[in-house]
Amino acid sequence: MFRSLLALSIGFLAAGPALAAPRNVVLLIADDLGMEVGCYGDKVAKTPNIDKLAASGTRYANGFASVASCSPSRATILTGMPTHMCGQYGLAHADHNASSFKKVKGLPALLAPAGYRSAVISKLHVQPKEVYPFDEEIAANGKNVALIAEKTRDFLDRTGEKPFFLLVGFTDPHRAAKGFGNDAKLPDSIPVVKFDPKTIPVPNHLPDSPDVRADLAGYYQSVARLDHGVGLVMKALEDAKRLDDTLVIFLSDNGMPFPGAKTTLYDAGVHLPLIIQKPGQKGAVNEALASWTDLAPTILDWAGVKPPANLPGRSLLSESPPPLAVYGSHQYHEVTMYYPMRMVRTRTHKYILNLAHDLEYPHAADLWGSDSWQGILKRGDAMMGQRSVKDFLKRPKEELYDVIADPAEVKNLAADPAQAKVLNELRAKLAAWRKVTNDPWLIKDMHE
Amino acid sequence: MFRSLLALSIGFLAAGPALAAPRNVVLLIADDLGMEVGCYGDKVAKTPNIDKLAASGTRYANGFASVASCSPSRATILTGMPTHMCGQYGLAHADHNASSFKKVKGLPALLAPAGYRSAVISKLHVQPKEVYPFDEEIAANGKNVALIAEKTRDFLDRTGEKPFFLLVGFTDPHRAAKGFGNDAKLPDSIPVVKFDPKTIPVPNHLPDSPDVRADLAGYYQSVARLDHGVGLVMKALEDAKRLDDTLVIFLSDNGMPFPGAKTTLYDAGVHLPLIIQKPGQKGAVNEALASWTDLAPTILDWAGVKPPANLPGRSLLSESPPPLAVYGSHQYHEVTMYYPMRMVRTRTHKYILNLAHDLEYPHAADLWGSDSWQGILKRGDAMMGQRSVKDFLKRPKEELYDVIADPAEVKNLAADPAQAKVLNELRAKLAAWRKVTNDPWLIKDMHE
Repeated sequence: MFRSLLALSIGFLAAGPALAAPRNVVLLIADDLGMEVGCYGDKVAKTPNIDKLAASGTRYANGFASVASCSPSRATILTGMPTHMCGQYGLAHADHNASSFKKVKGLPALLAPAGYRSAVISKLHVQPKEVYPFDEEIAANGKNVALIAEKTRDFLDRTGEKPFFLLVGFTDPHRAAKGFGNDAKLPDSIPVVKFDPKTIPVPNHLPDSPDVRADLAGYYQSVARLDHGVGLVMKALEDAKRLDDTLVIFLSDNGMPFPGAKTTLYDAGVHLPLIIQKPGQKGAVNEALASWTDLAPTILDWAGVKPPANLPGRSLLSESPPPLAVYGSHQYHEVTMYYPMRMVRTRTHKYILNLAHDLEYPHAADLWGSDSWQGILKRGDAMMGQRSVKDFLKRPKEELYDVIADPAEVKNLAADPAQAKVLNELRAKLAAWRKVTNDPWLIKDMHE
Repeated sequence: MFRSLLALSIGFLAAGPALAAPRNVVLLIADDLGMEVGCYGDKVAKTPNIDKLAASGTRYANGFASVASCSPSRATILTGMPTHMCGQYGLAHADHNASSFKKVKGLPALLAPAGYRSAVISKLHVQPKEVYPFDEEIAANGKNVALIAEKTRDFLDRTGEKPFFLLVGFTDPHRAAKGFGNDAKLPDSIPVVKFDPKTIPVPNHLPDSPDVRADLAGYYQSVARLDHGVGLVMKALEDAKRLDDTLVIFLSDNGMPFPGAKTTLYDAGVHLPLIIQKPGQKGAVNEALASWTDLAPTILDWAGVKPPANLPGRSLLSESPPPLAVYGSHQYHEVTMYYPMRMVRTRTHKYILNLAHDLEYPHAADLWGSDSWQGILKRGDAMMGQRSVKDFLKRPKEELYDVIADPAEVKNLAADPAQAKVLNELRAKLAAWRKVTNDPWLIKDMHE
């Protein structure tokens, strides 16, 4: 009976119109990865697999997360909304307990009516379930990239004719209970790529000290493991013959887990890798400004699903002219880390509005405990790279930077009369965006 | 057949051991009611029904909410945990979206295994459902106290032999879209009790101005409506012959919705009415310190259910010696109103720790928009009653008050060397309580 059914199906298919290939999506999210990737110009990083993806897809040179905190950034990616709009104000787990508004629809909910089967392997880190109703939540140690690839193969084996949306949430190069988890027991098949602290480049937001260099070497090792995982997952897709009908997106949620990057809206926190490989496309570099609020519209565009009308972003697959600015919105990372900020960034300038500037800038537990920060404290460093520790911890209400002349974002031009025009333009841009995205913190302006 | 079954049941019951009377609970929660109640010494309030309840039950003279914000206070009442422990950091609705930790069990969950049927009429204002799994959530306009009484009668008609836990959430005297909702269309059966602004007493945290007096008159009218509702619900209980097997608790979630009271940890915000009527008990006044964290242990005690081991409170029905202090924990009211505070209060002193003291004290939207506050702003008042506007808006890290000599809590003794012993004792008490209740904000101390 099976054979006759099969014959019948084949006959039916052959007789009917040609079936459109399913338009699958694989979304690869790195955890706390900054621009320390070969194809983004890093001279030390060992990332052949991410570089290969870039060579066959489109590498976005100007991709910006909307917030540099894990759950909020993932919520932005999955809903197309900045955090003040989707409600994922902070981290989802433990005491932080932040959750997106139940009225919001995340990608799994938006894609389901179009017949998509959705799954997440390893890290998701957003809630509640009704906003992110993945059909499968597949557990795996996010640093065991061999296991993640195995789970990916399993999933691909089980896909039928339904299109799928697969989110692979690596947890490299996030910090672990100890360092970057480089000493943890992992399968021997995962190569261990070591780095010499002496030759590591120190970014402009950190002091050049032996502890920082050692900390960075651990980070680069974790990045290499992530890269190996990306390669394994891409191989699984290739073996399953899914590269021809799958949009592959690779990006990070926020910048490196070091002081001056993660949890900030400085470029080290939000200017991140983004690679999109669309079947049939050739390797390209796209210089347009791209925001993580564009990802959901992009995926919906690929899937042929109309995005919710209130989304502020655009499909990166469309031919529409790129925006002149990208935006950011941060409320808190850990629940004890309240420090709401808003950002607008053009090709030349960045404006940050610190809504709780009277507070000292708060420390994430993992960054506080890092060898890098503890070293700064122990030595009593005045500077962390080009930025002073004092400026890092105590910020004015408004920050304005010329990101071309001052890529480290340390010369605040907000009080410079010569910059008044730029300042006012960016203020107006940000105010308009906050209004259109229903920013609840606008009430604070009313009370001043 | 119905008759024979009935006969069988009656025969069975008569033949078996005497059934213990069910130990029901009715929890009446007023919304934003301070001490403006006759039996608490207010000379103007018209509250004959609450006074009658006090005359037949126990009136607690020293009852303290743990926080002066609606959702957090109700979560504390229903879980026995301060807000930093149950996770209900702020308001549950709209953009605020705060919710209790899923691992916590609220009273409906704790009472269900003992066979309780639970219901809430009108305002609940906590989430998620799994923490507060009321069997019935019965909608009703919280200011239509006639409808609330009708729904109570309905509910009592439907109670079988199972014991019940009924929460009645009035919304008087909360502010409404316009004033206190006194002009809204309500059934004619609800008496309209007007007050003369000229004869209203002005509390020590407000200026004596015509707009404040008019605002207070509206509040007192709303309190009178609440009182009428309490009378109607008590009559429903009496008519249903439930007074003999029901523990009735009346209290408020936080103090009056005026600047200087609601959302603060000053006595005007947290020193509130609490009346418990236990069947068989006579009218009494209890001077012991009582905390809203004691309510869940009290109700569980009455129900014969063992409370979770980690609850910091005690049953008010027990003979155990009363505590020497009560505590408070505030994170935010509206999500834009971050201002974490901790409090310990003894019979003689209050110590407040302002964890985000660098911020200006934030305004609740309803208090900001009130005629009272707008009047203060328009006139440019320096004082709001005995407290200066400046001191109200900008607070030091630590506040210490002698609440006997200085009931308005305006003479901060924290820097007074003569008070160092009291200060250190209260600091130690608060630190111990924060530790035992797993305060996530303790991490801030580590980072200082």
